[in-house]
Amino acid sequence: MSIISVDTIAASNAPLLEQQKSDYAHLGGQLARRGVDIDAIKAKVKQFAVALPSWGVGTGGTRFARFPGRGEPRHVFDKLQDCGVVHQLTRATPGISLHLPWDHCTDYSELRGKAEAQGMYFDAMNSNTFSDQKDQAHSYKFGSLTHTDASTRAQAVEHNIAVIEAGRQLGSNALTVWIGDGSNFPGQQHFRRAFDRYIDSASQIYKALPDDWRMFLEHKICEPAFYSTVIQDWGSSYLAANALGPKAQCLVDLGHHAPNVNIELIVARLIAAGKLAGFHFNDSKYGDDDLDAGSVAPYRLFLVFNELVAAAHEGVTGFNPAYMLDQSHNVTDPIESLMSSAAQVQRSYAQALLVDRVALDAAQDGNDVLVAAQLLKKGFETDVTPLLQQARLEEGGAIDLLGCYRASGYRAKVAAERPASQGGGGGIV
Amino acid sequence: MSIISVDTIAASNAPLLEQQKSDYAHLGGQLARRGVDIDAIKAKVKQFAVALPSWGVGTGGTRFARFPGRGEPRHVFDKLQDCGVVHQLTRATPGISLHLPWDHCTDYSELRGKAEAQGMYFDAMNSNTFSDQKDQAHSYKFGSLTHTDASTRAQAVEHNIAVIEAGRQLGSNALTVWIGDGSNFPGQQHFRRAFDRYIDSASQIYKALPDDWRMFLEHKICEPAFYSTVIQDWGSSYLAANALGPKAQCLVDLGHHAPNVNIELIVARLIAAGKLAGFHFNDSKYGDDDLDAGSVAPYRLFLVFNELVAAAHEGVTGFNPAYMLDQSHNVTDPIESLMSSAAQVQRSYAQALLVDRVALDAAQDGNDVLVAAQLLKKGFETDVTPLLQQARLEEGGAIDLLGCYRASGYRAKVAAERPASQGGGGGIV
Amino acid sequence: MSIISVDTIAASNAPLLEQQKSDYAHLGGQLARRGVDIDAIKAKVKQFAVALPSWGVGTGGTRFARFPGRGEPRHVFDKLQDCGVVHQLTRATPGISLHLPWDHCTDYSELRGKAEAQGMYFDAMNSNTFSDQKDQAHSYKFGSLTHTDASTRAQAVEHNIAVIEAGRQLGSNALTVWIGDGSNFPGQQHFRRAFDRYIDSASQIYKALPDDWRMFLEHKICEPAFYSTVIQDWGSSYLAANALGPKAQCLVDLGHHAPNVNIELIVARLIAAGKLAGFHFNDSKYGDDDLDAGSVAPYRLFLVFNELVAAAHEGVTGFNPAYMLDQSHNVTDPIESLMSSAAQVQRSYAQALLVDRVALDAAQDGNDVLVAAQLLKKGFETDVTPLLQQARLEEGGAIDLLGCYRASGYRAKVAAERPASQGGGGGIV
Amino acid sequence: MSIISVDTIAASNAPLLEQQKSDYAHLGGQLARRGVDIDAIKAKVKQFAVALPSWGVGTGGTRFARFPGRGEPRHVFDKLQDCGVVHQLTRATPGISLHLPWDHCTDYSELRGKAEAQGMYFDAMNSNTFSDQKDQAHSYKFGSLTHTDASTRAQAVEHNIAVIEAGRQLGSNALTVWIGDGSNFPGQQHFRRAFDRYIDSASQIYKALPDDWRMFLEHKICEPAFYSTVIQDWGSSYLAANALGPKAQCLVDLGHHAPNVNIELIVARLIAAGKLAGFHFNDSKYGDDDLDAGSVAPYRLFLVFNELVAAAHEGVTGFNPAYMLDQSHNVTDPIESLMSSAAQVQRSYAQALLVDRVALDAAQDGNDVLVAAQLLKKGFETDVTPLLQQARLEEGGAIDLLGCYRASGYRAKVAAERPASQGGGGGIV
Repeated sequence: MSIISVDTIAASNAPLLEQQKSDYAHLGGQLARRGVDIDAIKAKVKQFAVALPSWGVGTGGTRFARFPGRGEPRHVFDKLQDCGVVHQLTRATPGISLHLPWDHCTDYSELRGKAEAQGMYFDAMNSNTFSDQKDQAHSYKFGSLTHTDASTRAQAVEHNIAVIEAGRQLGSNALTVWIGDGSNFPGQQHFRRAFDRYIDSASQIYKALPDDWRMFLEHKICEPAFYSTVIQDWGSSYLAANALGPKAQCLVDLGHHAPNVNIELIVARLIAAGKLAGFHFNDSKYGDDDLDAGSVAPYRLFLVFNELVAAAHEGVTGFNPAYMLDQSHNVTDPIESLMSSAAQVQRSYAQALLVDRVALDAAQDGNDVLVAAQLLKKGFETDVTPLLQQARLEEGGAIDLLGCYRASGYRAKVAAERPASQGGGGGIV
Repeated sequence: MSIISVDTIAASNAPLLEQQKSDYAHLGGQLARRGVDIDAIKAKVKQFAVALPSWGVGTGGTRFARFPGRGEPRHVFDKLQDCGVVHQLTRATPGISLHLPWDHCTDYSELRGKAEAQGMYFDAMNSNTFSDQKDQAHSYKFGSLTHTDASTRAQAVEHNIAVIEAGRQLGSNALTVWIGDGSNFPGQQHFRRAFDRYIDSASQIYKALPDDWRMFLEHKICEPAFYSTVIQDWGSSYLAANALGPKAQCLVDLGHHAPNVNIELIVARLIAAGKLAGFHFNDSKYGDDDLDAGSVAPYRLFLVFNELVAAAHEGVTGFNPAYMLDQSHNVTDPIESLMSSAAQVQRSYAQALLVDRVALDAAQDGNDVLVAAQLLKKGFETDVTPLLQQARLEEGGAIDLLGCYRASGYRAKVAAERPASQGGGGGIV
Repeated sequence: MSIISVDTIAASNAPLLEQQKSDYAHLGGQLARRGVDIDAIKAKVKQFAVALPSWGVGTGGTRFARFPGRGEPRHVFDKLQDCGVVHQLTRATPGISLHLPWDHCTDYSELRGKAEAQGMYFDAMNSNTFSDQKDQAHSYKFGSLTHTDASTRAQAVEHNIAVIEAGRQLGSNALTVWIGDGSNFPGQQHFRRAFDRYIDSASQIYKALPDDWRMFLEHKICEPAFYSTVIQDWGSSYLAANALGPKAQCLVDLGHHAPNVNIELIVARLIAAGKLAGFHFNDSKYGDDDLDAGSVAPYRLFLVFNELVAAAHEGVTGFNPAYMLDQSHNVTDPIESLMSSAAQVQRSYAQALLVDRVALDAAQDGNDVLVAAQLLKKGFETDVTPLLQQARLEEGGAIDLLGCYRASGYRAKVAAERPASQGGGGGIV
Repeated sequence: MSIISVDTIAASNAPLLEQQKSDYAHLGGQLARRGVDIDAIKAKVKQFAVALPSWGVGTGGTRFARFPGRGEPRHVFDKLQDCGVVHQLTRATPGISLHLPWDHCTDYSELRGKAEAQGMYFDAMNSNTFSDQKDQAHSYKFGSLTHTDASTRAQAVEHNIAVIEAGRQLGSNALTVWIGDGSNFPGQQHFRRAFDRYIDSASQIYKALPDDWRMFLEHKICEPAFYSTVIQDWGSSYLAANALGPKAQCLVDLGHHAPNVNIELIVARLIAAGKLAGFHFNDSKYGDDDLDAGSVAPYRLFLVFNELVAAAHEGVTGFNPAYMLDQSHNVTDPIESLMSSAAQVQRSYAQALLVDRVALDAAQDGNDVLVAAQLLKKGFETDVTPLLQQARLEEGGAIDLLGCYRASGYRAKVAAERPASQGGGGGIV
């Protein structure tokens, strides 16, 4: 099922085919000189997929304001359609990650059918116990899975189990749990008891997991709690995942760490411990900025992929990370940002695949530091654009993502169909 | 005009009077040994005032959710009344800082009259061009005072001028300008041109200032813009204030700096340059957390006051800072947080007054580092609680702020009068 | 054995006795009103000890320069004597932590005898594989316990075992292992393999531990390696300690974390996991600044002790942390800094003991956030100086540490005995 | 005068000539499609120069240890020769920046002659008042230009004037002033008075500047002072430069800022204010790590050059920055690191030249955020390696810098001539 017509894509690609062919050939020649087979890399890139967050196709905001864009999705079916556009042009994003209750729907089998008709499937499910829903019995103001009140914890556990059930119907096989629990004042929370309550609640959710499911624990240093959080870093996440069992693993969101922290090193530690669940990709300069992946620190993204490619290369047991974008598109067309971000993630993956791992091993073993550093840089500095474009082209996608999308007139079309969404500020400075 | 009955306060104070007298006397004796006259300090503390933010009496939130409290103020008159409670018990917060259009009202003279009846006045006015208002002609999605479009800038300038006019009617004498302008992506904004547009717009506002007004420029490193902001630090704030003229000065919000930055040093620089406008007091551990003043890093707050007291002590020309709280009360009763924060700010001021500045000068000149350090610590480690309580008591306030407030039943009373406010989450992860 | 004459101390105390008595009595009265028995607190403070780092009595430096002070210790016997002064006046620092090979000596039983004659003992031993020693076979330029070369690793392991043996002779019962291993460039080190080598080397050291010894693993985010370190945070430290066995635990140096990190939360996690080895106390504003404990962020130090006191109060199984100062005294007389820092650590401990834990539990359980926060603050804001002074006085120490020390003329005396030490800069900008 | 024989270079280049030709031609074709003339870019790259720090050819260290390499330079003539190798192969580093008294020499005209024979000249001179020299009358332990003692300040001023005089003889035309002055404890220093003393001392140096000289003020947030520094950020640097006069400007060292700070924005502010002196290039992950330029955050380096190229493109009045590397090579051959870093800096410059500034202006004006972001990325993602190699090749340099240098055997040769240097650790943990 095409959302953007195949003719539109073909028309966009046509004038670019010749130069694409030439660029791909020249890059192939360059890589061949390094002993790299470009077609083998291309094949791997084609197999690579990064999931889309359903909430990412809407315009995001901050505590100060939200400025909606045109044609914002009204419900999960609109979101599915917007995600379909991203996947149709990039050919890299077949999975969709839902967030309940935002994406609640009365007929999950209908939703699943529509996704499958778009060649898409449902990736990890996300629960939400960081905000109150209408008519909710207990408030999460002072916590959810770690609340001091047992009924509130039970309510949060039940919600997670309901999300698993929805996911089961949708064909998902993972639950991502991120909570906003923590404290804003020294003394507000008993650190050890709150953690114990987390383990207790999470264990109940864990027990409800189908056999082939995994549970992804997401840590975050702060926000919405500004003095402490319960799963504040990978250390706490690891302790929790370990306490829960083998199906529980640690999810890394690139924006959830303290300043200066070496994220790729954390990734390596989690890989070695068999506890890397996967990623929420985005970029950040200050905190959990949720900027487009690779837009601010592309070398950091590459270094993360360097760890992933190395682990795959070495066949580390149990290595099987899930990849997802998690961004807040405040000033761009969300579809454009998601396409561009998916391509950035692919770029980092492809560049990491180019690293000569035999030579790198030798340089590391011999402490030839500069050569080791340059081997990584050589991968990163390679412009793999023609390779990514070729992979998309061969799969029916667009060489020029932005050009094709804008030419399609999709945004104007949905803006006409979908009523304008509310913006405004919260008065919460 | 009493909001809390005088009897309630007296009843709360009564059982504490004896111990208060004894504690004050003993502290007086200790200070006398250091050559400090406790009554002189008390007199200065009584003269000290920190303004309340009108938006601070409502429950704050984050981009993830807002969890309202009971009895939230419905409009500026409710806010005024809540501020009145804070001032009545603390005797330290006679000023109120309004935020327009949030606090828009049709009859400012009525509002002013009510405030004066409470023994209060209107401090600096705040404009808002960081969120769109209903029926606004131009959106601030891509900036306000620095927008690339001249009509949008003009609209933002006009709003600021309208805020000045409202403030004029209310008896205020300062305008605080904080903008959310900036960028989320490298390349989005031409840094130098955006700054030039800021100066141009701000100059138009500056021209509209009444003769006895000041204009406070507030810098912030990030949020809601996550790659760059236009007035990102005190350096840019200084350049702007200098370009505008003598009535423009730089406002320091304690949470608006990069990690690790020495804020008291910035305060000293601005004092020396004659450009310290004043403060938005709050505390933070990670970013612009807007926690209660002194709740996380009380020594930092003291060190800021050490600079202020030193400047006053030395009679630095033009030194005349404005003090205001600016906090987001997400998990506490806002009135309780504001009372407690006002007392913390007073505490830091009183402690800084205790520092032996003659001895400190000598230690600094002689590089007797440890003695210099201990002279500050001696002030900070002194428990000035009896002094603060005595100052409040003598002015008709409450010895035990929290105890008296809770005994008054004020929150339950307004909860009965004011309908429950809407909470919920924004879906903007 | 007295280094400072008992008469000197008595003469220093004499004029202060009366006010000390009065202040202690008044504080006792205040605490009694809170239901706290001041003598019980005093008894606990007397039992509290924090160890001195032998290297801390020399003047520290930076990579830019070292500016020596007068009378610097020439060898471990001089260091022992200087530590003796600190303990004699503070009565709080009976333990000494040695660093080999810096403190190498030919007759450890003589050294032990001298320490015991001063009423002191040897605390955790520290190995050094972060710098090369003369005539060392293999360089640690590219690592020690994690070096890619097996002979270098073996040499580092052997050194640690030698340190254990020296410690055994000295009566110590713990080995602290901090390594400088890591990398300065992305790609330099294979993260997972380096960690595996660490576990392998550390296991060999672990096997050499006497039965009643513990092994303290010290993590650090950076420096001297500036891209990655092998034990970069408490998460890696925990993984390593867990791999080694029950005698291996995680040591927390307050300056070894990323900016903004909540250290007291890490302490709580390690306590819960049974893996808290203890502390290297110091303070910092930017990085591993090694400033005097509590000199910059005293509330942070208090919050750490709040976790420790809570754990002791609750009787957490296996809770038995070791306390040590680890500071670099670049601009002060090291003896003065160590005395002052020991007193700061005591202060935080005493203040944390004052917290009403029953009320705190209730406030936390009931989410009375402000009350919980104020219960901690009440402890912190109490000026426990008279209590600390009384504890010292009763044990034969000095009420006024700095006054007594300066009156003793100790520094001038050793300056006359010990030749001036070399300073200068390294040319390593 | 060749240090590396011309034949060695030719032999290294020979096997690479054909592929270089092909790669350059293909890149030229790609750029032509974007409307960019590769030869024009190449011409600009050839004109670009970045100066070498004389101290950079020695192995650096940390406060923990220094691990010397082979064949370390013994004196300024050795350093000059090593710098000559870097320039001979890169053709990008004709300037050398000296540091006195480290590079003191008895006959500056001889030194200048040798440099000129190598086709090199002397760039900005650096003074050193952050460490004590033998037989120095006054110590800088507590400051130099800002010391409380007038004689110490006078000594520091005199040293700077002597450095200017040496530089005059060498043909330099700028003095870089970085001081270590600051404080380690709150209270140690009176912030405003220390700054006043700085201005007073710096004014005396300023007066001694020859007419055609500039004075570069270098700010730094911390280290070796760990609580405060006197010129802590660009704001203070600007205030100082402004107070001194038009010849004083602000030097930006990429590693001297607080975490998360947007450096390229500071660069833009200084450009607009006419106060950008230039750069000390290096890279960092945590603090002033002094890693190789572009080795950790290459996009940040590009974004800095984006500001520089934009300013040149727009013809900003007075824009004339000085470029210098300032790195500490602790684990690599310094010559290799300097060559590689010079090439990284060139790379960023060349990539920034590729940005379509007309299209960027349009995207910025129209708030087409994603297109603006992608226009920068397009420049950065272009692999300009063939362009840089071609520029070197045509100027007589090496296509493969590392390969050619290693083939030359230079390091082994000087290792044979120069005695091994001392390493070891300082015992200053």
